[in-house]
Amino acid sequence: MTNANSAPFAYPGLERIFHERGRLAICTCLIAHPDGLSFTELQGACDLTDGNLNRHLHALAEVGVVRIEKQRGTGRPSTVYQITKRGRQRFLAYVDELESVIRDVHEGVPRDARRPKLATT
Amino acid sequence: MTNANSAPFAYPGLERIFHERGRLAICTCLIAHPDGLSFTELQGACDLTDGNLNRHLHALAEVGVVRIEKQRGTGRPSTVYQITKRGRQRFLAYVDELESVIRDVHEGVPRDARRPKLATT
Repeated sequence: MTNANSAPFAYPGLERIFHERGRLAICTCLIAHPDGLSFTELQGACDLTDGNLNRHLHALAEVGVVRIEKQRGTGRPSTVYQITKRGRQRFLAYVDELESVIRDVHEGVPRDARRPKLATT
Repeated sequence: MTNANSAPFAYPGLERIFHERGRLAICTCLIAHPDGLSFTELQGACDLTDGNLNRHLHALAEVGVVRIEKQRGTGRPSTVYQITKRGRQRFLAYVDELESVIRDVHEGVPRDARRPKLATT
């Protein structure tokens, strides 16, 4: 049994579903586009292969982080990928834990080797 | 061919060697302990199993990020694990990219759903 105090560098909040690099890219991109994006737009923004993007989107949809919506208009039906409200909350909690890693790195680095931290503006 | 402009959410600097959660924990812990730690100390701080910690340490040593040093004193020989100078530089570059992900998340999140950013103190 461990907790944050006994294992200060364990970071249990780094949820596997978000920590994979491709999924981190997809969720960050979808947070920036709350109205959703098409497969092609996501692919261009995240630089993932068809197969990888497809796999990650379905993994995220399976746990309710991404909503996949087929839209039918006058032209061809199109599919839009959106982050869900619950997904955004979970992802932001994950990002909080990432920030605590970064804080620990900055606190651990000798002062003369430090780089500037995140801007707060 | 892509670059940062054409794929703004690709994050190529998230090096696989550091991004795995256990290795992220180990490197953050070793940055905070520049004189090195024993296997048992690292294990307690990062909450990793024997097998996982051992596997990660050897993966990091193989690419020159971690130095494994056997020390012989009056008692039993002990092994100390340290982050190398080059390893620290590479890890800090990786952490820079993590910070750019976090910046993108904060910029993408609607203002009313934002959480406080990293402190700059």
